[in-house]
Amino acid sequence: MPRSGEEARRRLQQATLELFLERGYDATTTAEIAARAGVTERTFFRHFLDKREALFDGEEAFRDALSNAVLEAPADLDPMGALLFAFGSVEKTLADNRSFSEPRAVVIARTPALQERVLTKTAGLIAALSGALRRRGVEGQVANLAAQVGMATFSYAASRWAEEPALALGAHLARAFEELQSLSSSTSRPGADR
Amino acid sequence: MPRSGEEARRRLQQATLELFLERGYDATTTAEIAARAGVTERTFFRHFLDKREALFDGEEAFRDALSNAVLEAPADLDPMGALLFAFGSVEKTLADNRSFSEPRAVVIARTPALQERVLTKTAGLIAALSGALRRRGVEGQVANLAAQVGMATFSYAASRWAEEPALALGAHLARAFEELQSLSSSTSRPGADR
Repeated sequence: MPRSGEEARRRLQQATLELFLERGYDATTTAEIAARAGVTERTFFRHFLDKREALFDGEEAFRDALSNAVLEAPADLDPMGALLFAFGSVEKTLADNRSFSEPRAVVIARTPALQERVLTKTAGLIAALSGALRRRGVEGQVANLAAQVGMATFSYAASRWAEEPALALGAHLARAFEELQSLSSSTSRPGADR
Repeated sequence: MPRSGEEARRRLQQATLELFLERGYDATTTAEIAARAGVTERTFFRHFLDKREALFDGEEAFRDALSNAVLEAPADLDPMGALLFAFGSVEKTLADNRSFSEPRAVVIARTPALQERVLTKTAGLIAALSGALRRRGVEGQVANLAAQVGMATFSYAASRWAEEPALALGAHLARAFEELQSLSSSTSRPGADR
């Protein structure tokens, strides 16, 4: 039996991920997760609300880290600059977490109930980033737009990073931003001559 | 009692919206909705799966209209150009639907369960737009990025349109695209000198 609470928590997360991969989300019970982790089901519920939450641990800390980084970004950075600064600041956290987050992405791709959870999580991240931009003096609707566009750019960079892990996330972020600039510099848009 | 099925459907939607506004989503039952619409509860379930779906009718048709418009956009339009063309093409549909969609937005803002539903709906729209862009020959990840950025730009335009309805959606879309260009033309980004 793992002795510390932290160790039990980590083992429960690992067991959750393994069982979701092996048997699928629906077929896995919290009792099986606890057994695999070598703890009681009661211990499971001391750490997590349900089996789904065992997969999304650390989300609040990640959201706070990102929005704090937006607030702490140099004052001369514009909204997208502040967001890119924040995304760059979590590179180590994300890199350290890859052995968990990559198989988790496989489980999520197979499981509609988890995809809904990811949508809620992403919406929460966007709201937090938008709130941080507003605290930097950005107007509300512009802050929402920037936070959504920033998150889309970050997701693009993270997907490319998964495809090409040898290149650092910072480099993928710079490329993603160039891709965004290229998309947005459209001269062929239909509204241009209206 | 309304005679035609279409008339009953329309009355059920209106009754759903009214009761959600008056009593809240949780406190409203399908029996009450049916009574308000002057039909039986059985008729309610002939039209809708549950009370939530009565609020989101026409979603599939709207998604198809948008993705078809992306496919039918002039071939020389780049990804954002094709998306703006598509958003512009649904202006009449959206304008005709405002007397329903605006009070619905009030209900949604008060109801977390409906906000989740909106996230799923928006994700479905983004996936459809991304699929349509791919069919225009846009690479998969770039199509995802463009669809997400396009949808964020559309949401910005729709919010501004709600604030300033005298100006046409097309004009708000053009302004939203300018705002996006302004955000994306950042020269102060931290990655610029890496």
